[in-house]
Amino acid sequence: MRINYNELKETFKKILKTRGFTEERATEAASVFADNSRDGIYSHGANRFCRMIKYMDEGTIDPKAEPTETVSFGAFVRMDGHRGFGPTNAKVAMDKACDLAKEYGIGIVALGNTNHWLRGGSYGWQAANRGMIGICFSNTTANMPVWGGKDPKIGNNPLIVGIPRSNGKNVVLDMAISQYSYGKIEQTKLLGEQLPYPGGFDTKGNLTCDPVEIEKSQRALPIGYWKGSGLSLVLDMMATVLTAANDVQAISNFDLEIGLSQVFIAIDPTKGSSVEDTDARVSRIIDDIKSSIPANEGTKIYYPAEREVKTREDNLTNGVPVVDEVWEQILKLL
Amino acid sequence: MRINYNELKETFKKILKTRGFTEERATEAASVFADNSRDGIYSHGANRFCRMIKYMDEGTIDPKAEPTETVSFGAFVRMDGHRGFGPTNAKVAMDKACDLAKEYGIGIVALGNTNHWLRGGSYGWQAANRGMIGICFSNTTANMPVWGGKDPKIGNNPLIVGIPRSNGKNVVLDMAISQYSYGKIEQTKLLGEQLPYPGGFDTKGNLTCDPVEIEKSQRALPIGYWKGSGLSLVLDMMATVLTAANDVQAISNFDLEIGLSQVFIAIDPTKGSSVEDTDARVSRIIDDIKSSIPANEGTKIYYPAEREVKTREDNLTNGVPVVDEVWEQILKLL
Repeated sequence: MRINYNELKETFKKILKTRGFTEERATEAASVFADNSRDGIYSHGANRFCRMIKYMDEGTIDPKAEPTETVSFGAFVRMDGHRGFGPTNAKVAMDKACDLAKEYGIGIVALGNTNHWLRGGSYGWQAANRGMIGICFSNTTANMPVWGGKDPKIGNNPLIVGIPRSNGKNVVLDMAISQYSYGKIEQTKLLGEQLPYPGGFDTKGNLTCDPVEIEKSQRALPIGYWKGSGLSLVLDMMATVLTAANDVQAISNFDLEIGLSQVFIAIDPTKGSSVEDTDARVSRIIDDIKSSIPANEGTKIYYPAEREVKTREDNLTNGVPVVDEVWEQILKLL
Repeated sequence: MRINYNELKETFKKILKTRGFTEERATEAASVFADNSRDGIYSHGANRFCRMIKYMDEGTIDPKAEPTETVSFGAFVRMDGHRGFGPTNAKVAMDKACDLAKEYGIGIVALGNTNHWLRGGSYGWQAANRGMIGICFSNTTANMPVWGGKDPKIGNNPLIVGIPRSNGKNVVLDMAISQYSYGKIEQTKLLGEQLPYPGGFDTKGNLTCDPVEIEKSQRALPIGYWKGSGLSLVLDMMATVLTAANDVQAISNFDLEIGLSQVFIAIDPTKGSSVEDTDARVSRIIDDIKSSIPANEGTKIYYPAEREVKTREDNLTNGVPVVDEVWEQILKLL
């Protein structure tokens, strides 16, 4: 079914308020879930809502906790997330990074002891909507072997870069370091299909497009083989050192994927240039790639997040798609 | 042959001084070439020296130009590289970023109108040797199609992350966004071999390990397919917007790969933690990946730049390998 965006958001908000969220934080948290579904990231929108409420009910996530500053030095701030709700924690952190960037040109917030931020792209959008370049990354539980290894040791540590455009059509790269998420691998398996490109190793150690084999071997592939493996490592090192909190190994020792370390960097491009100049430079690059000779007849070229904007427009007009059973489950929480 | 490291450096220095480098800048520039060969990055060391001198002699690189600050706001500085020698320009920029990080916790320098920095890892090492986390990236000429396109439109824009360790064994990721460099592709072709993993598309549009086919199609592959394509794009956008200088498209319109845009970010990890704390956290992550079950019997796990340190130790003891003809060419420049 398709639910009106505002109805979806209000429903989330009502439920969150019953879990101890204040009016303001309930609005923010509800927006995160509703916006993710609105933009087509259903797995981190309505589909994830009931699980998050369950974590709150079980005490895994403290719905009342808010991040506090533990270190502040110039354009650097460290925050303790007190195991609160990941998306509102992340939002506070990126907002602070943007404030710092306004004051210093660049700002960084290292947020430890937080929880899953759901869709990392949200915080790239958040920075870009404030006219800032936003860079953020999170560590995760170990879900891939390091290059040359067999057992899961590194995270798929998502990396996000948001670039502002004053027309609101921001460029937002939201990229996990794994070639495919385990969600995508499972979905492909359930459809009885093969992945379009190799996504991991089979149990014999050969590259494979077969989701069944990858689930068996638990050897999902980092992007660019050894390169993504190295990138995952340095992201974890930066997140851990700057937060002085949990690394991938520590998180993997918890029962659930909690207590994450995240870094938020904002850069104010107007310190050296005008908004118009930034717009012109970004549009010039977009126009250039769109002028590519298509690889196959009819292939369209998209910049990162372009399709999300199209989905957003459709979902705002025609309602946000929500799986019937998911909506039923959500309504039961009211 | 193997040349003593100091002899190599002194030879470079003597030649650079004849091209208008001051004593100090000649020392710095000579170190870059010598260190790159010393660490095993021969393609960006001795092997590249004669070509760089040729560029200076032809006026493509101005050996006397030094970067100047054009914008300074808090922790953000923009520099104009005046088409000077790339590695000394980059060194000045990363040094300034580290100074800013000391003052503000984080610092950023956007350097436009510069030239090829040779080995990007140098500046990750530079920051880490000062106890800083260093992040830097450069745009390049267009050398890969964007995802979905056929003709070269995006750069392999190298991304570097350096993590400091007080024992000097820094972790330095130095990663171009292409799966393989064209240098590696050509070398593999000359050896009559195949790439170990697909490195591009053949002329029919299928993924291939065949270097001959990739040279024909000019369709080298970004890491992680669409992911690396997006990463390359946002790196170019950031570099272009923050420097207000050339994007990949503009650079591609020059006859040579010149006038690049680069960004240098430094973060001081001691603002929130001690050096000992950083060391312990980084070592813990390294120890964990080293405890992996090897993918194949005897496979060793390395962290980024670990093997460079081993090569360095060997080359300092036994001399730096230089191809005979290359050394002859270099000596002719004296």
